This record gives sequence, C-alpha cells and structure tokens, in this order.
Amino acid sequence: MTSWECPVPVAAFLSSSDLENHSQRDSRDTHFIDDARSRTYDAVCIPLTTAKWMERWRGMCIISSEPDGETRRAEGSELRAETWRANPAFELGEVTMTRLEEAEGVIAMVSDWLELDAADSWVRHDSEIALQQELSYASYLDVQTAIFPPPRNRSQIAAYGRAVNTCLARTPYMQFSIRLPIYDPAIFQAASPARSASGAPRSKMPSSFSSSSSPSTPIRSPGSRPVPSTKASEAELNATWEMWDAIRSICAYNPRLTLTLDLTPPLPSVPGVLNRWVAEPIRHLFIPASSFIANTKGYPVLPKGSQSFIRDVMKHRPVVILSETNAGLHVKGGEAAYVQYVRHLDKTSPALVQAKTAGTVENFARGYQDYLQAPLQPLMDNLQGITYQTFEQDPVKYQSYEEAVHAALLDWPASERIVICVAGAGRGPLVARCLSAIARVKRNAFVYAIEKNPSAYVTLQQRKASEWKEKVGLLFGDMRSLALPESADIVVSELLGSFGDNELSPECLDGAMRFLKPNGISIPSSYTAYLAPLSSSKLYNEVHAGKDDKASETPYVVMFQAVNILSGQGADDGGRCGTQIQECWEFEHPRRDVVLDERGLPVTNSHNIRSATLTFHIPHAGVLHGLAGYFEAVLYGEIGLSIHPNRKEHISKDMLSWFPLFFPLKEPLYLPSNSELQVSIWRLTDQRQVWYEWYAESFLPVLRPPAETPKVGPLPRVDGHGSFTTATSTPFVPPSPLIDAMDNPFFVSGDQLSKEVTKRVGEGSKVETGVVKIGQTTLHNPGGRSSWIGL
Amino acid sequence: MTSWECPVPVAAFLSSSDLENHSQRDSRDTHFIDDARSRTYDAVCIPLTTAKWMERWRGMCIISSEPDGETRRAEGSELRAETWRANPAFELGEVTMTRLEEAEGVIAMVSDWLELDAADSWVRHDSEIALQQELSYASYLDVQTAIFPPPRNRSQIAAYGRAVNTCLARTPYMQFSIRLPIYDPAIFQAASPARSASGAPRSKMPSSFSSSSSPSTPIRSPGSRPVPSTKASEAELNATWEMWDAIRSICAYNPRLTLTLDLTPPLPSVPGVLNRWVAEPIRHLFIPASSFIANTKGYPVLPKGSQSFIRDVMKHRPVVILSETNAGLHVKGGEAAYVQYVRHLDKTSPALVQAKTAGTVENFARGYQDYLQAPLQPLMDNLQGITYQTFEQDPVKYQSYEEAVHAALLDWPASERIVICVAGAGRGPLVARCLSAIARVKRNAFVYAIEKNPSAYVTLQQRKASEWKEKVGLLFGDMRSLALPESADIVVSELLGSFGDNELSPECLDGAMRFLKPNGISIPSSYTAYLAPLSSSKLYNEVHAGKDDKASETPYVVMFQAVNILSGQGADDGGRCGTQIQECWEFEHPRRDVVLDERGLPVTNSHNIRSATLTFHIPHAGVLHGLAGYFEAVLYGEIGLSIHPNRKEHISKDMLSWFPLFFPLKEPLYLPSNSELQVSIWRLTDQRQVWYEWYAESFLPVLRPPAETPKVGPLPRVDGHGSFTTATSTPFVPPSPLIDAMDNPFFVSGDQLSKEVTKRVGEGSKVETGVVKIGQTTLHNPGGRSSWIGL
Repeated sequence: MTSWECPVPVAAFLSSSDLENHSQRDSRDTHFIDDARSRTYDAVCIPLTTAKWMERWRGMCIISSEPDGETRRAEGSELRAETWRANPAFELGEVTMTRLEEAEGVIAMVSDWLELDAADSWVRHDSEIALQQELSYASYLDVQTAIFPPPRNRSQIAAYGRAVNTCLARTPYMQFSIRLPIYDPAIFQAASPARSASGAPRSKMPSSFSSSSSPSTPIRSPGSRPVPSTKASEAELNATWEMWDAIRSICAYNPRLTLTLDLTPPLPSVPGVLNRWVAEPIRHLFIPASSFIANTKGYPVLPKGSQSFIRDVMKHRPVVILSETNAGLHVKGGEAAYVQYVRHLDKTSPALVQAKTAGTVENFARGYQDYLQAPLQPLMDNLQGITYQTFEQDPVKYQSYEEAVHAALLDWPASERIVICVAGAGRGPLVARCLSAIARVKRNAFVYAIEKNPSAYVTLQQRKASEWKEKVGLLFGDMRSLALPESADIVVSELLGSFGDNELSPECLDGAMRFLKPNGISIPSSYTAYLAPLSSSKLYNEVHAGKDDKASETPYVVMFQAVNILSGQGADDGGRCGTQIQECWEFEHPRRDVVLDERGLPVTNSHNIRSATLTFHIPHAGVLHGLAGYFEAVLYGEIGLSIHPNRKEHISKDMLSWFPLFFPLKEPLYLPSNSELQVSIWRLTDQRQVWYEWYAESFLPVLRPPAETPKVGPLPRVDGHGSFTTATSTPFVPPSPLIDAMDNPFFVSGDQLSKEVTKRVGEGSKVETGVVKIGQTTLHNPGGRSSWIGL
Repeated sequence: MTSWECPVPVAAFLSSSDLENHSQRDSRDTHFIDDARSRTYDAVCIPLTTAKWMERWRGMCIISSEPDGETRRAEGSELRAETWRANPAFELGEVTMTRLEEAEGVIAMVSDWLELDAADSWVRHDSEIALQQELSYASYLDVQTAIFPPPRNRSQIAAYGRAVNTCLARTPYMQFSIRLPIYDPAIFQAASPARSASGAPRSKMPSSFSSSSSPSTPIRSPGSRPVPSTKASEAELNATWEMWDAIRSICAYNPRLTLTLDLTPPLPSVPGVLNRWVAEPIRHLFIPASSFIANTKGYPVLPKGSQSFIRDVMKHRPVVILSETNAGLHVKGGEAAYVQYVRHLDKTSPALVQAKTAGTVENFARGYQDYLQAPLQPLMDNLQGITYQTFEQDPVKYQSYEEAVHAALLDWPASERIVICVAGAGRGPLVARCLSAIARVKRNAFVYAIEKNPSAYVTLQQRKASEWKEKVGLLFGDMRSLALPESADIVVSELLGSFGDNELSPECLDGAMRFLKPNGISIPSSYTAYLAPLSSSKLYNEVHAGKDDKASETPYVVMFQAVNILSGQGADDGGRCGTQIQECWEFEHPRRDVVLDERGLPVTNSHNIRSATLTFHIPHAGVLHGLAGYFEAVLYGEIGLSIHPNRKEHISKDMLSWFPLFFPLKEPLYLPSNSELQVSIWRLTDQRQVWYEWYAESFLPVLRPPAETPKVGPLPRVDGHGSFTTATSTPFVPPSPLIDAMDNPFFVSGDQLSKEVTKRVGEGSKVETGVVKIGQTTLHNPGGRSSWIGL
C-alpha cells in the first residue's frame, strides 16, 4: 500500500490505436511513451502486443466460428501451431516495446483477446501458452505489473483461475492484476450488433466492457450511457465478484494477485454490492474518459455515485489508469482536466482527510491500518512505560472516567466520607481524574491506588510525593489477594480490552469486589462484547503470511480499513437473524449472586464462563475471513465507553485507546446472498487461563413444497429442550422492511414466495420455510491450545 | 477394524434396572457382570453411574422445569454445586463399578441424562463437568470405550461438539462413541404422554430413543411398532447425520471418535439415507430386543430392511450391543437366540462372503480395503518380479487380451503374414497370450516383444529360449525411441492405470504408434477415465493421518470399502447434471491427427492434455472427501476391460488387476441435499512430467421470484462463448424420474415448485430457476507440485 503522504499515481492508458497512429507519424525512437509520461501522468499502461500478433495467433490457433458456435482450426495451420507450442516466441512487430528503457515503469496489458476461459479446450490451451509467452517477454523487459484480460465465462472460471495460478508459480517476481468490471454491463444493455474488430474478422470477440484496447471500439458518447435498471438480480450483480473470488481462491490468495477495477460501466446504486469490493486487493482503477460526464462548465467530472465510491477506494492507494483522455470527449480542460479531477477525488477521500486531521482515531492509527497486533496481557505481563504513555494520550477515555466518578460522587450523601479504590492504577491517570472529580464536587473523599507492576509503582510513589500527598494511599500488590485498610464505596478500574473481558477484567474485579461496602459500586458497572462477520482479503493474507497454523487461531487487535462487514443492518425481529452487529455477552460488577469462599473470592470461575450463538443475515454473497469484536462499557449511569461501530460516535467519539478485536478463520467460508451465518463463541476458563473458542455454520433459507408437510402426528418434544431438525423448528419470519427492491435476495427468501404462493394459490397449499445447512468452519483454538490469557 | 477371520463381537447391555434387580438379589461380589459375559456374550455394556448420582447432580444443578421451559437452580444448592464444580467427585453408590476386575473389557455408557446441548447454559456447563468426572472415573477403572448420550438439540450442536472435543483432548487413551439413531424417531410418532423417570421427577427427560437405560421405559411390544411414513422430509431424515457430521467436524475427525448406531427406531426404506452411514466410523450397533420381530416359529428375527443394512454394516466389524434380551419379548429361543441371529447376519454379510470366496476381487484384496497405495510408476521405475507375478495372477485380464488378439487376427485376410508388436512385454504374459491366439486361428504371424526393464528382459530371453523360440523376436529398449525391424499390423500393450492414462499409456503409445502400418491397430484401441464424488471418513483420516500437506494432493490406489458415492443415479438428461459416475475424457490409439516430427513422434504433448468439468447431482446431504477414479478400455471390438462400478460385472467380471484411484480433498466439502457438485479436473503435461489438478465448486438450485425476471433487454452474448452468470444461463431441468417420493429434495428443486406454481397460478407468473454457489475446494496439486508422473 502506498504511503498516505503521496497522492495516488495516475497512469495514461495508451491503446493499440494510440500507438499505431503515433508510429505512422513518427519513428519509434522518439520516445512516444516518455512523451505520454511527461503529460502530467505518473505512469503509462500499454498493451504488450500488437494486432500483428493477434493475427498470427488466430491464424494458427483458430480458424473460424462455425454455425454451431464451435471453433475449428485449419488443417494447414496445425504444423505451425505445434511448432509454436514447442517454442513460443514473438516475431518483430508483434510487441509494442523492445527496449528496457521503453518498458521502464510501464504497466503492461496482456493481450485482451486471449480466452483462458474459452468453451473450446484448444483455445484455452493455446491462450495459456500465449499468456506464458507474453509474461516471459514482459519479464525480459523487466515489467513489474501485468494486467490480465477479464474472465468472461463463469462455467470455465476454474480453467481461468488455474492458468493464472500457473503464471504466478512460473513468473515469480511480477505482480498480476485481473481486470474486472463491478458487474457485467451486458445485463443492462439491449443486444447490440456483433462487432468485428479490424484484423480479426474470423474470430470471436471479447464482450463489450473489455473493448477499450481494441482499435475499432465505438466510443459511446458521455450523455447516452445506459443506466442500471433496479431490476437486475442479485445473482447478476454478484457475477463478476463471484468470478474474482473463485480465481483468487484457486490461486490460494496469492498476495501478488490483485484487482484492476474497471469502472467503464456505470455503478449500481446498491451499497451492499459496492462495499464488498473495498475488502478486496484493489491495485488499479481503470476509468475511461467516456465514464466522465460534463459539469455545467463543460469540464469532465464523475457521477455522484462514482465519486463517493472512488473516494472510498482511495484508501487502497490504487494506481488510477485513465483511457481515451485524448479523444476530446469533453469540451473543456483537455487531458489534464481528467488527471486533476482524479487528484481532487484523492485529496477529498474520507480516509485521507481523517488521517490528516489531528485528534481522530484515523490520525492516531496511521500506519496501523489492517495491521495485526497481539492483544496486551497486562495481568500476566507488566506493561512498559511507553505503553502507559500511549494510552494516557487518549483525550476522551479519561474525561469519561472523570465524569463517571463525578456523577457517582454527586449521588452520594454529601455528609459522608467516600472511599474510592483505583484497582490497577498504572502510572496514575485514573487517580488524577478521581482527585479532579473530588475537587469539582468538593466532597470528603480518599483514594486508594492499587498497582501490581513494580515499575509503575515507582511512578505512583513519585506522583504521591510530588502531587497527591495525603489525598492518596498507595498499595502494592495484586488486587485479587491484597487487603485494603478500609472498605471502599467506589472501585474504579480500567481493565477493559477491545472485547471487554479479554484482558481479564471479570477475574480481576472478582478480587477487587472484596474491597467494596455492601452498597458500593464499580466503575465500570458493566461491559458488553459484540461481534460482526467480517470479510477482508488483506487480513486473511496477513494472518496466513507466516504459514503458522496457530496464527489463524488467535485473536488480534486491528484498526480495520480494507474490510467489509458482511451482515445486513436489517433485523428480522422475532425471527432467526439478529442485527448487523450483535451482542455476545455481558459482565456486571459487583455480581451479588456468586458463592464466595472464606477469603471473599469466588469458589470457582464458572460464573465468568460465557457462550453465545448468534445468527446473522448475509444479504450479499461474500467470503467470511473472520469476526470483528467490539465492546461497550457503562462506567456510571449514562456515561460509557464504546467502540461499537454504530454507537461509538455517540458514546465516546474520538476515543483512541481501543482498536477492535479480530477473530480470524483458518479457512475462508463462502456465504451466498441471503444466507444465514450462525456463529458460536465461547469464553472458557480453567485454573490457569482464560481463552476463546469460535466456530460458525452457514445456512440458506429454503422452501419446502406443500407435499412434504403432512405427518403422522405432531412432533413430540418429550423433553422440550430442542429438536433434531433446524428446519422444522424455525418459525415463519416476516421479511425485513429494510431490504429494498434491489436487495431482493436471489433466493425466494422463504416468506416472500410463501406470500406469493399463498396470495395466488389460496390457503389450501401452505409452503413451509426452513433453512438448510451449507457449510461450516473448523473449531478455532480448541482447549485454548493456540491462544490464551494467563490468570 | 477387526479382522475378517473373527466374528463380530456381541455385547449384552445391562441396564440400570438389570443391575439394581441383581444387587437386590445378590451381593455385588458375585460377579454379576462376569455372569452376563459367560452367557454367550463377548462383552458387556453397562451404564457407568447409578440413579443416585443423577439425583445428586440434579439436586445441585437443576431445580425444576418452570412453565416457560427454562430451568432454575435452587438457591441453597448453589454452594453445594460450586463445591462440586471446584472438586468433582463421586460418592459411594453413585457408580456401578468400583474394581478393576469388574470393569475389564466393559463398554461404559456415560450418564445419558447429561445434556451437553441443553438450551440452558448452566445445564450445559454442569453436564460437561459431570462428563469429565465420569470419564476420569472410567479412565481410573481402565475402561477403554465410553459411549456418549446422543445430541438432541440441533441449535446447540456446536456446544455438544466442543464438549466432546475437550474430552478427547483431556482423556488421551480412551475411545469415545456417540450414540445416535439413524433419524429422530419422534418425526414418525404421535405425541406420547411425557414420561417421568423414577427418581428424577423434577427434571427434564431425554427423548424416547435414548431411553433403554432408564429403568421405567415402557417397552413397546414387537408387533406394534410405528412404521416410517414416506412423507418424512429429507431434512428430517438428515437431522441426526447432520448432527454427527457437525460433531466430528468440530472434533477435527479425531480417529478416537466413533459412532454407535442405535437401531431402536425402524429403518427408513430409502437407500440414499442409509448408505451415508456406511461411510462413517461405525464402532457399535445398538439393537434392543424390541427391534426384533418374531418369525413364524416365534424366534426373534429382524425385518428385511434391517437385515440387509446390518449385513452391509458388518464390513465395519462393529461390536453389536443387544439390550432387553432377557425381557422375554419373544416366545422362542431365549437370550441365545438374539446372539445367534446376529452371528448369522455376520456370517451371511456380503463383504464376508465375498472375502471368503476364492477368485473374487474382495478375496484377492483382503487386508487392502480402504488402504492407500501410491500408484505405480512403471515408466520411471522398473517393476519388481513380485509385482509382475501379482498382476499376472489375474484370470480375466489376460483372457480378455487373448480374445481381443484372437478377434483382431480373424479380421485380417487369412493369406497375409501378420506382425504383432507387444509394447512393454514385462515377463511375457501378453506374448504368451498372443501366441495362444495365433495358434487358435492358425495364422502366419510373428510377435515382437519390446521391454525396457533390463531385469524383466532376462526372463523374456529365458522364455524365448525355452518356450517361444523363433515365433518371437525380442527388443530391448524404450518404445518411444526404439526402431522395429519391420512395420507392425497390431501393437498390443498393457500400460493402463486405474484411471486409464495415469501410467502414461498415451505418451508411451505415441512412441509405439511409429511401428504401425498405416492401417494397423492398437490393442487397446481406446480407454476412458471416469469420476464420482466420494464420502469416506476412513479415507479422509488415512490421508490426513501423517500431517503431511502433500498427502492430500496426491491420488492413491484404493480398494474402496467404507465409502459412499454421493452422486445420484438419476441423470437429468439435457440438464445441468450428468449420471452418478461420469466420463472425464478418452484416449484413442492410433491417433491420426497428431502432427509428427521427422522421427515420427508428436512435436508437442499438447494432444495428450485433457480437462473435464463434470456436474453431479447430490440427492442426499453428505460430505465430499474426494473423488473416485475408474477406467474402462476397449481392447478390440466388443472386448474390453472395466473397473467402472456399474459396468465391470458385464465387461470384465472378477478382474483383479486394478483397484480404483482416489483423488483426496485437502478439506472436506459439505454438500446439502439436492445440491450440485461441479468438478474440474485436468491432465497436464510439460517436458518432464504429467500430472493431475482437481477442484470443485458446489451449488444449490434455487428459485427466482417472478418480480426479478424483467430486464431492460435480452442478454447480449456478443462473443457467444459464455456468461458471467451461471444462474441465468442454466436451462430448465425436468426432474429425474428416478427420484422417488421420499427422495424429494428438501429444497423445492426449481422445476418442482416451478411446476407447482405454474400449475396453480397459471402461465402469467413464470418462476425462473437457477443455481447459487455455496462452496468450493482449493485447487489440488497445482503445477504438479505434490504429485506427478515422470515421463
């Protein structure tokens, strides 16, 4: 990923016709490519081969399209083809570049008429040989990046993916990028007469969106572009992403394989369809001038939807490749106007703006986006001074603590002496805030500060000596075993992790609750863990980069960036699925129902065991790479801390101390549109440690025909505690009001067709709904084998 | 797996009431358990705990079933429970065995009232502690095998599986077996009044099928058992298997985890539902006397369906556990009659009968069932004498060769001298067969024998000197480079592997075809590779036992036994799916369209590259563990060789030389009922080697509601070679006539509901069908990295 400091590079795409026109006017050695580079572009993208090569290849490998759609090869061409296959090589004039200087920094476009996914196996075979030949030549020229033609045939996607995977193995240093539109534009266009490219009359042509490098492509005028119909099905809008997913899965998420998003077709207006691309490795954006519209002054600008999508995608720092910019499609500004406009979008992209604004989490987290950090274990390890210092910078968290203590003090009778105990004082930030709150309410209060880190305890002693004096009493030791000289009214602690309980706040506070008077309170008084299903090829690659199996069974602290939450916002209230981000479990302090031993400690840790089974609705097909974990805490009354994506802005805006937790998956789990994901997660404990285990199953809602419904009798549930069958026990679910027409699931989401059928057929034939299992993950971190938190 | 030589062990199940009745009559030290052992049983299976333990556990952990179905614990019991949780231990009288001698060889039944999958998290938690406690005690008594109570709650299956997985980790030497009926019998039974077990009136009871260890279970009379309705849905019949699959997946296919199939409920009559169990690790069969019916003489026998299922399952060599045999349910024979009947089923099981019949493949393959063998590489390695000898034993293969040569000779003009070339003569079996055929037709023929194995060539020279004399000419060398003194009319070879081409027959015969006259022929004249999707937990475990990643990317030669072909027999002709076992590709010899160089050899090996994309219909939910590969060859005219499961009996019955090939999967792929599996497989080649790559995607047929159908215009397919969307391009498929009523897919298989809707609603609202992707495998053996065949 390019640094935030530099603007995204903009490249000019020079088509075959650009190159040919030029070579007719000038000799090749006038550095036509350098000329393009100098015209405000940072790079150029050019096709690697010429029409001459296409003609020779087709003459050898394809003879004609027969009426039955099959391609046949000429008999005479077979010897030439075999000779070529034995030793694939270019002839002069078949390639656009011959010298290292010409190729320097060039992004090469592989011949886009190659059909790695042709229906004909010989065309596939010879396309693959030609592709290897082109990549060998590009490698000879020291080209760093090659863009592959888009896959076009879903039924041969495995063949395309296998060929790309072979290239990745055989050409070890080059970056490969697959060019793909967000959807197949053909689904929105009326049939157009079949075009025939000059120089290739006998052969099959690629479909329309990939035509910009063909010299004869009719350029559509900017005003008359087709607009997506809202009636496109989910499956149609998924199609190109589904192919990308199949290819990169076949290529085992090779990090050298990236995406070139082709923004030639106009963008659909459904966020769910667009968001998924943000979680993919976008390396290039391909934007033809014809995708621009003219603003009122005649300058080229992009439609609103494209603007915001491109601004969002800028966080990938892609190379933006502009084509047709010299075609004069817009009356004002010339070529430079397109480039300036792209740079403007980059500068105004939210990620960049936030990263440059002091005080934001994004600014604080610069360089840490999508970076995996091991969660802290402050109970087992003593933190370093620098760690305390980093977290003490948080402008929001300590203010909230002060407000919470302040509010609690106000609720105490004014006459009483109030004892506060800061359990886990660190270098003293909470002690200072307690003193500040006490000063504000002018109450008679005393603060005990407990700390078990001997180094931090030195700092505490220093602060007591120099600042706090007799207002504070210091105690050195573990809050689970220490004795306090007197009982406390308020215990204040900051033991929370990104998932709430993941730094053992429950176990530590079980010990600290011994200090409390019967009516004493804990700040925080409760905290809740939340989960959401996440897609991110970047994070998947980060987790699997080290080839260490344990790496995929450990949660990480991550500042998310190139990720997509797969679950839908719409809750099916009373039904199977919950909201987009769901509550796992909660801890409350003090907990009064726990059986205590003679020391005042719980007899076992069973009361801190938790489990949750959450069901998420997945509106759009995606790949699950892990779970995002968040927390929200109530400090006191209305004052809280939250990193819940939908609530943090209201509860604790600009709080810096916690990035979310990421529970990775060992293997990606494919989730179709309108599927349901059931996540099971456990917080487990034994004498020595606490750990999480997680697991997921996927389901699809389906129909059962009326014929299957009758039974011998009603289902006996003798024990009343469950059922063998998920399908029969699931209730009828009304459709979510938040699912709009375009979000209509590809499936008949049970109820929908049920209504349909019931409405039209009458009540005589009820259609039952249910879900069918379609997949599952492994159980992650069984027995805390790979990841645990020491008690 | 127990040896074929011993009969399957039969165990007596002694219920709690058996034990209690006995202990009332006698003192415990009269070896009641030994007494049971002596009564013709090989082993005993007894519950580990008594009702006393259940009462104490429930008193601590459960108080009552509230009207809302939730369970609540008593306040006073909490301290007892916490004390127990901190140190779980039995009191005297809570366990059925106390001495090592009592427990010797005993199969222990864990308390079957434990609810590892209870809806209440505290019940789950305390059940797990109790389970650990019971297993610790069983381990103390040196019990080798413990049977777990069945899971009963689909929505908490992950909790059940996680608990079992923890037991596997904590109790390292014991075998665990999950007791499960083939389906939940409740789906076929009318609601019966809730029973209350004596001694546990306040608590929840397990459902009916698991009741045989509860003393108060009402035993149904043998005559009045409910019969499965054919209207049970696929999902209902899948439910228990689906739970088993989830549990063993969560336990990562731990080989110490097995199945105890509970045959209490009557078997369904659908083979697809039963077959899947054969591919699972069945270690015990649990059969209560009440499942037996009386034959005309009054002796206990099993219904026809159960008989054949049990006979089939006998190949797992399970321990058969009989219960209620002392209850006098059948008038004749007493306890011994049940045991004798089970032994009779074992002796007459097809696997055992075939294994004991000389001349069968099963007899030849004894000890090799489900055993992974690396395929031979006879081109790269020179075979050993013992290998030649093993394969020369085949009584069928060489006879077929002789008949093929005989038939070919008859088709030659009687006057001509015929030259036969045996390409790859080995120790000479084909040479001998050719001479025998020549003698039978009394033609003027000469045989050349080529062999490149110098050791085998010694044998050939010896046979020429002693037997063949001047009738045979020997040539030492590789058929791809050797020169023959004269052109041949017939080239005879035996270069085929289990998958046809996998021992490089195509490449070798490309060389040998140089010897042929223009109208010469090859025996074999063609061969075809076939594939079928396979489920087998045994093979999955064998492949993954070594923890070597490469082991799952290599095909193996395997004599299949505990496997299940997942695909359906019924072909959807003209539709998406093919037959149960599908053709991959074919090779023909001689191949006349190949371009040859001056030496008469192909210029490249491109013509031997193959690829196939096959779509299988999966009628019943299952887990794909790999692909079964077969071949069929045409030797000459009507004479062939085949290991195709459905055709081998007709083409080459009792042929021994080839076991099938098994292409394993790295990760199991879950396939729901009525899904479609698209398998891609490639035969690839470079200068040095040939290898296979394989990959699969899974799909589900779905409906699209009429509202989604309208479009702006028809889909333009400019290039005519494919589509982005699988869904829109799939044709309407008529249902298979072979799918019977009970096989009705849980899904509305597109056409079915489409018909339903069309029939009732009329033509006004067409429902479109399509498929949606639900999963995929990784690409196996990319670039021949893990497995290849040297050229």
